[in-house]
Amino acid sequence: MTQVYLDNAATTQIRDEVIDAMTKVMKQHYGNASSTHSFGRSSKSLIEKSRKTIASYLNASAGEIVFTSGGTEADNLVLRSAVRDLQVEHIITSRIEHHAVLHTVEQLQKEYHISISYVNIDATGQVDFSHLGELLQNPKKTLVSLMHVNNEIGNLLDIQRVADLCKANKALFHSDTVQSVGHYELDLQKIPIDFLAASAHKFHGPKGVGFAFVRKNSGLKPLIFGGEQERGLRAGTESVHNIVGIEEALKLAYSNLETERAYIEDLKRYFIDKLKAAISGVTFNGCSGDMETSTYTLVNVCLPVSVEKSAMLLFQLDLKGIACSKGSACQSGSTQSSHVLAELLSDADLQKPSIRFSFSSYNTKEELDYVIEILKEFTDH
Amino acid sequence: MTQVYLDNAATTQIRDEVIDAMTKVMKQHYGNASSTHSFGRSSKSLIEKSRKTIASYLNASAGEIVFTSGGTEADNLVLRSAVRDLQVEHIITSRIEHHAVLHTVEQLQKEYHISISYVNIDATGQVDFSHLGELLQNPKKTLVSLMHVNNEIGNLLDIQRVADLCKANKALFHSDTVQSVGHYELDLQKIPIDFLAASAHKFHGPKGVGFAFVRKNSGLKPLIFGGEQERGLRAGTESVHNIVGIEEALKLAYSNLETERAYIEDLKRYFIDKLKAAISGVTFNGCSGDMETSTYTLVNVCLPVSVEKSAMLLFQLDLKGIACSKGSACQSGSTQSSHVLAELLSDADLQKPSIRFSFSSYNTKEELDYVIEILKEFTDH
Repeated sequence: MTQVYLDNAATTQIRDEVIDAMTKVMKQHYGNASSTHSFGRSSKSLIEKSRKTIASYLNASAGEIVFTSGGTEADNLVLRSAVRDLQVEHIITSRIEHHAVLHTVEQLQKEYHISISYVNIDATGQVDFSHLGELLQNPKKTLVSLMHVNNEIGNLLDIQRVADLCKANKALFHSDTVQSVGHYELDLQKIPIDFLAASAHKFHGPKGVGFAFVRKNSGLKPLIFGGEQERGLRAGTESVHNIVGIEEALKLAYSNLETERAYIEDLKRYFIDKLKAAISGVTFNGCSGDMETSTYTLVNVCLPVSVEKSAMLLFQLDLKGIACSKGSACQSGSTQSSHVLAELLSDADLQKPSIRFSFSSYNTKEELDYVIEILKEFTDH
Repeated sequence: MTQVYLDNAATTQIRDEVIDAMTKVMKQHYGNASSTHSFGRSSKSLIEKSRKTIASYLNASAGEIVFTSGGTEADNLVLRSAVRDLQVEHIITSRIEHHAVLHTVEQLQKEYHISISYVNIDATGQVDFSHLGELLQNPKKTLVSLMHVNNEIGNLLDIQRVADLCKANKALFHSDTVQSVGHYELDLQKIPIDFLAASAHKFHGPKGVGFAFVRKNSGLKPLIFGGEQERGLRAGTESVHNIVGIEEALKLAYSNLETERAYIEDLKRYFIDKLKAAISGVTFNGCSGDMETSTYTLVNVCLPVSVEKSAMLLFQLDLKGIACSKGSACQSGSTQSSHVLAELLSDADLQKPSIRFSFSSYNTKEELDYVIEILKEFTDH
């Protein structure tokens, strides 16, 4: 059966080189990195090499990279400690953030009675910078948490501008960069951001590992307490194979960035053009139809289909071997309607099926032709 | 060079079968388990199969197993939520618990002003049950956290007795079973325990995955917020390869339990006997010299050596290719003196070198002969 994987914003296929590197570590380096003997030191040195490599790609220093079990843990680490240890009393975020941020912030509000402000966004999901500026006038100690690339609609945030604005207003800035690290270059010397969260499995690395960038002397404290791993910021025996996996994946992502970006950008442009030609009335949610203001890795398509047929679409695509996502697939029960689209679309458009197609360098135009053919069939009949 | 790995309580060599299973998953099943398409369902079904297998070995139900990034996270999940969500105001633990419990409890005391009681232990590290009974008279809502097998001195706790006592006194009971799951059979229908923590890399599985057993209807809430993974108890995309790894490792551990236990027990007995014969004045810390009251997997040896020479011992052993541990190796800087031995030993004995040797089925008597020869040389000269 034809199988087309177009859900790369949910997760990506691991590169063979990454699997090979991880398998080698599992076979040859099983020491506990906290042990002082040779077995331990060999694991420790692999981890520190990974940390250094990753830091170098982001123009950060090695001590600013804290390995975690993934992006969600990194978001939780930063947000909880900001409130508990850095005395943040006010968090500015938006209603179209990932649940790893939104649900954590809501939980922190319950526990610590902090105030939350949601910055206005327009119908395409773009942040209202003048509103953000107003919110930053709040005299309480403030942290801003806004994602770099929206996982559902692909909107690109001007992260430099937000960072500068936060700095000017003495607010902390955290960004969930899970959809951008490995896909966009980030120079953390140039961008005065305090924290970010990243996840390996979004750039062809393993699931179960990510990192937080934690700016030096931030005063952040752990989410998980116990041993002194990660310079005291994250207890628990390090997952050496996963850490080597994220290093290898990030290295390959950035080494091939220009070529792969051009290739994937071309796929997205092709998909949009063909889709417009094939299905009249098709629209694109958020900024995802625009090559300039959205990521090259995904498009979120709204199809002109009746309510009755809408429910069948994902099921039909799955039957045809096409993997894509209704809203975000980063949580269970992703057939629930998307909290992001609910913020943006009219009631009428919310009744129509919206589907996120997300691309990687493993995809081909032939695959896209196949998908468009199926979509056309579905909307015509 | 001869290499002898006797630090299996710090971490273990991954079994080849486990590596093979993990590699296969990474190559063939890269879907996000939260995606509803076929790629996602195939990952989801692997995770649910792992959950079911693990539950069956512990006589628990699948819904009671919550996958985490390891034992430390599982301890943190249980302890934090017990205080925050289950209104625990009093924790009873001991001063010889793992730091994953001790440091977490101390942190919770700072945050929530709960009271902590440390149950008395005797000079061999055994819990004073009558004191525990007294502490349980405290009218505050109480949780007891006592580990099943001590990671440094190997003492076995009568976990059934503690669980029964807690139940009779309406206290919650959590046990760090990181050193016992995969090494001892646990029947969680028989033992009325509320929570436990386990870690794959202690039984020849991968680092970076473990689980919490969370008794049904406990009311526990997450440590890490975001998506609805793990039935809402642990957000973050699941590390499918690591989860399949822990399943495979636990299956092999319990399938081979009797044979491997007999083999390792024989190694430990042999080591103790030979060591006593070779080095007069050698003693064993905690209960570790006694086959009945300590785990078969480790021994903690105190050598009759002068203070001056003491500092050199671990270094000498490392030079000779012998990997073992001074105190616990589960944290960075394990050359620091052990908080466990500090509770048990006299000042004079604390000056002598104490070393933990921990065994697995990959060890041989020839290796032990080599170690004893080196130790004898060291103590003689």
